[in-house]
Amino acid sequence: MLLTADAKGVFPIAPTPFFDDGAIDTASVDRMTDFYLSCGSTGLTVLGQLGEAPKLEHAESVAVAGQVIRRAARLPVVVGVSAPGFAAMRALTHEVMAQGAAGVMIAPPNTLRTDDQIVNYYRQAVEAIGADVPFVLQDYPLTFSVQMTPAVIRRIVQELPSCVMLKHEDWPGLEKISTLRGFEKDGSMRHISILCGNNGLFLDYEVERGADGANTGYSFPDMLCDVVRLNAAGDREAAHDLFDAHLPLLRYEQQPGAGLAVRKYVMMRRGILTSAAQRRPASPMSATARAEVEHLLTRLARHDKRAALPPA
Amino acid sequence: MLLTADAKGVFPIAPTPFFDDGAIDTASVDRMTDFYLSCGSTGLTVLGQLGEAPKLEHAESVAVAGQVIRRAARLPVVVGVSAPGFAAMRALTHEVMAQGAAGVMIAPPNTLRTDDQIVNYYRQAVEAIGADVPFVLQDYPLTFSVQMTPAVIRRIVQELPSCVMLKHEDWPGLEKISTLRGFEKDGSMRHISILCGNNGLFLDYEVERGADGANTGYSFPDMLCDVVRLNAAGDREAAHDLFDAHLPLLRYEQQPGAGLAVRKYVMMRRGILTSAAQRRPASPMSATARAEVEHLLTRLARHDKRAALPPA
Amino acid sequence: MLLTADAKGVFPIAPTPFFDDGAIDTASVDRMTDFYLSCGSTGLTVLGQLGEAPKLEHAESVAVAGQVIRRAARLPVVVGVSAPGFAAMRALTHEVMAQGAAGVMIAPPNTLRTDDQIVNYYRQAVEAIGADVPFVLQDYPLTFSVQMTPAVIRRIVQELPSCVMLKHEDWPGLEKISTLRGFEKDGSMRHISILCGNNGLFLDYEVERGADGANTGYSFPDMLCDVVRLNAAGDREAAHDLFDAHLPLLRYEQQPGAGLAVRKYVMMRRGILTSAAQRRPASPMSATARAEVEHLLTRLARHDKRAALPPA
Amino acid sequence: MLLTADAKGVFPIAPTPFFDDGAIDTASVDRMTDFYLSCGSTGLTVLGQLGEAPKLEHAESVAVAGQVIRRAARLPVVVGVSAPGFAAMRALTHEVMAQGAAGVMIAPPNTLRTDDQIVNYYRQAVEAIGADVPFVLQDYPLTFSVQMTPAVIRRIVQELPSCVMLKHEDWPGLEKISTLRGFEKDGSMRHISILCGNNGLFLDYEVERGADGANTGYSFPDMLCDVVRLNAAGDREAAHDLFDAHLPLLRYEQQPGAGLAVRKYVMMRRGILTSAAQRRPASPMSATARAEVEHLLTRLARHDKRAALPPA
Repeated sequence: MLLTADAKGVFPIAPTPFFDDGAIDTASVDRMTDFYLSCGSTGLTVLGQLGEAPKLEHAESVAVAGQVIRRAARLPVVVGVSAPGFAAMRALTHEVMAQGAAGVMIAPPNTLRTDDQIVNYYRQAVEAIGADVPFVLQDYPLTFSVQMTPAVIRRIVQELPSCVMLKHEDWPGLEKISTLRGFEKDGSMRHISILCGNNGLFLDYEVERGADGANTGYSFPDMLCDVVRLNAAGDREAAHDLFDAHLPLLRYEQQPGAGLAVRKYVMMRRGILTSAAQRRPASPMSATARAEVEHLLTRLARHDKRAALPPA
Repeated sequence: MLLTADAKGVFPIAPTPFFDDGAIDTASVDRMTDFYLSCGSTGLTVLGQLGEAPKLEHAESVAVAGQVIRRAARLPVVVGVSAPGFAAMRALTHEVMAQGAAGVMIAPPNTLRTDDQIVNYYRQAVEAIGADVPFVLQDYPLTFSVQMTPAVIRRIVQELPSCVMLKHEDWPGLEKISTLRGFEKDGSMRHISILCGNNGLFLDYEVERGADGANTGYSFPDMLCDVVRLNAAGDREAAHDLFDAHLPLLRYEQQPGAGLAVRKYVMMRRGILTSAAQRRPASPMSATARAEVEHLLTRLARHDKRAALPPA
Repeated sequence: MLLTADAKGVFPIAPTPFFDDGAIDTASVDRMTDFYLSCGSTGLTVLGQLGEAPKLEHAESVAVAGQVIRRAARLPVVVGVSAPGFAAMRALTHEVMAQGAAGVMIAPPNTLRTDDQIVNYYRQAVEAIGADVPFVLQDYPLTFSVQMTPAVIRRIVQELPSCVMLKHEDWPGLEKISTLRGFEKDGSMRHISILCGNNGLFLDYEVERGADGANTGYSFPDMLCDVVRLNAAGDREAAHDLFDAHLPLLRYEQQPGAGLAVRKYVMMRRGILTSAAQRRPASPMSATARAEVEHLLTRLARHDKRAALPPA
Repeated sequence: MLLTADAKGVFPIAPTPFFDDGAIDTASVDRMTDFYLSCGSTGLTVLGQLGEAPKLEHAESVAVAGQVIRRAARLPVVVGVSAPGFAAMRALTHEVMAQGAAGVMIAPPNTLRTDDQIVNYYRQAVEAIGADVPFVLQDYPLTFSVQMTPAVIRRIVQELPSCVMLKHEDWPGLEKISTLRGFEKDGSMRHISILCGNNGLFLDYEVERGADGANTGYSFPDMLCDVVRLNAAGDREAAHDLFDAHLPLLRYEQQPGAGLAVRKYVMMRRGILTSAAQRRPASPMSATARAEVEHLLTRLARHDKRAALPPA
């Protein structure tokens, strides 16, 4: 099952579960995958920035991706293959596609500046991984320092048929969605799937602007699924009410660098992960931060009973 | 009245009001200043990034600062004097201090990298403006690309007595506040005022971490004042309830680059500004964005009647 | 006399002469201008990066530019007007054009990334200063972190008729010259003057590639003039011989940040400036660096008697 | 044989030889290694930036390193192991050390900014690769955008005993060498080897400042060896005369991004490599550039007969 430009809904970005000693927690990998399946996800992404991919040995990366792909069975799984060189990108791509991945996600190296450099990079990446492998274009200037205009994205989409999805995390980004959907309407760009990142910080309006859903790691992917569903059903205010209830925690999780620790902590509190451990090097959450997250969960529980958890 | 390290509360960052033709709207300058005074502000900052300072002729800058200083009378007014060279910084500083400014705000040029370069820059800035002028250290890595560790801030504070306030907008930044307050507790750094920026996106927890208040441009500074007051009064949940009600709009305004247009629009809708115009070059809000802001205001009005405005 | 796209030869970038106490040394301004006139320059540029422009008060900038313009009389003088805002850029432009400047030089702010942002910036700059003021496009990615492709330069040239010269300091940059001249040949871009910067580090081949000359601050502008002249006269090996003799010193001067001190030192040693002082803040040359420069001059004097100077 | 802080002389940075079809040219690997041995090198570095390391499959990297290590036998071979994650760095380090590498070279990721971030990164790297593996600290701000002050280098050297060499390519960098050697003299830093990069652009004065030699990829490493030897023998002017003769070509090769093609071309012309091919993606040299290099070689041959080559 290959990823297509018609993908919709929520593709959670999965963290990589570890035990406290840094070993991969395969039982949690299964439990997490089952959770994503059960809460309405339409796909999954592994080995993204959030997945601590650079801390995994190559064999571990392939093993984690394979386990999720097999467990998710009926859902498409996208694998992050961003790498400093095309040789490593090609090698990982071929291994995970052979295991049944639906496609790969490629972020731009942060040395790219001009429009031509960006387009050329993706041209070379497709040449490396093969034009038959669907890929997700990751547009995340906050972290990668690479700015892609809508016109550059259009050039990539038009020139490279294997580009089927945009992971949209430009910021601000609402007008960009409108512009890209406008390109489709005026016939200058074929349709692609647009799923939004940034922990979903603007998902409420992004789906109204034409995004197809979310592709991010918020610790309540079930809420993301509900918001996309409510919006699609035309239940606008209900979608906003639910989203707004989560916004204080969601914003807290979206802090660059600090967010992963919070997400793993909440997923542990929800019983999805056995441990909130990150593999070293990692910055642990302070006791104050943990208390703040508990406070946010308690307040959230007034509006969404999924946040009502037994004491830590 | 000079700014001191004991400053607390809310110093709104004031936009510069323009008519649609780009002329400065002095009536709105007065009305805006009066509004800030009436809603509980404890100070004001003009000619910040938000104030479109680079679009003002030098004489206009001095005139706007002077008008606000005179009108605010009983409140300290801080003036942004960041400049590519120390000559311009010194000239503007001397003119606004002569008019009664309480101090100046200095952002680091985005070429600074090493700890020593940062400390040295502020050393040179103080040499340029004079050690008798209180200054606000602006720590805003998202925009300026300059990363100041707590230890670097401590070096600046300890070496330069005229540094009396930190405009804190690191992101994530909660632990930084705790660390700096820890330096004060362990005696390794004297006390300074910490007011928070980033449109107040984390103000709810920043004040709990020890920040003295806010120094930002959110279009409901009255809410910021209330949150600081409620927190100081120990009314924690009420502070969070009010803050959370504003968070959807606040987050929308905090989009880099796009926020000023939203802030001016809301301030116009609230009757504070005559026009939402920015001086050219500027990016106008799209009709869709305006509709989104109206939607956010309508939803906010359910919780805060100050957002219940007559139709646009 | 306005700058035109037919400009050729050498436009030295003039430093600003100071006394040791930081005051402007107006006698040296005259002597330096006379020197540039006498050695074959075809124009002059003042208030560039090299000119310590950010350390000058606005009135000083206007005064220095005016003095050079009047003294240079028969030669076109370009004035650097790069500024963080268009208001300051417009103000300085109007003042120096009123005094007889031939045009202005505009560097891109280092926040620009995409092709459209760059083109749009120059569009706005021309709107600010007026379409009747000839301007030099400064392409200096090493310092400004802005990368302009040949296609972007072509867009600017084609859209903005007042762009008459490129200060070329991309690195590497030889192919860029060939590409731009190719655009002229294939009719897709009108002709502009291309003068090269980077202290002339590649001037020997740049003129062979089609550049019209140099626009840089090397302390032997007379050598730059000779190389351009010899090349134009078809005396290729003589041009290279002279250039190569200077290359060890030229390279030493081209060190980013450190070069100005060396240039001022050599110009003082040559009797052009009274003092090598930079206005504060500045990094003085070490005694070892001075000895290295003396060593380089001594070695150069074996090939070019202009470097044979009385002992320091 | 492990790398020690007493290393001196020239460690050429070896390119990776390819055939025109992109396959590794193992015969050229041997011939190139023999050439380095024959011309007076005291060590070798493989898989650096120059070695097109990101284009090699993992197994290829290990194979190339192993072949050079075995062939060089009596000389220490340093292997570049910079990677986006510590897992990959550790894996490659262990494989090449098992094959007899003398140490590894680690460049900082370009996201590092503050002094503490830099020191912490190397602390974590040593934890990953093991404290028993000697490593070379690569200080190359032009490419990596990471600025290490002398004080930061001292912190790394003092805290991490396995740091035995600095690959010095800051620019400007002469004062940095003097400062570091001053730290050794005042007893605040233990001695480390300092070898210089940047294609040797300042090697003439770097060795006079206290550097131990060169660690760079200039296509005439024999000249680098001669300059280091002449300087050590006190034959200063002869060292400069030889260096200056090479400077025009050396400077041409030092163009960022463009240099590798030139180096491989000259090494092919010298009979060291069979082909100048780079593995894709690569930018080929233009015909004009090739002609310029031939011109530079012809001119160089007047001073150094090693540049007198049979026609291309």
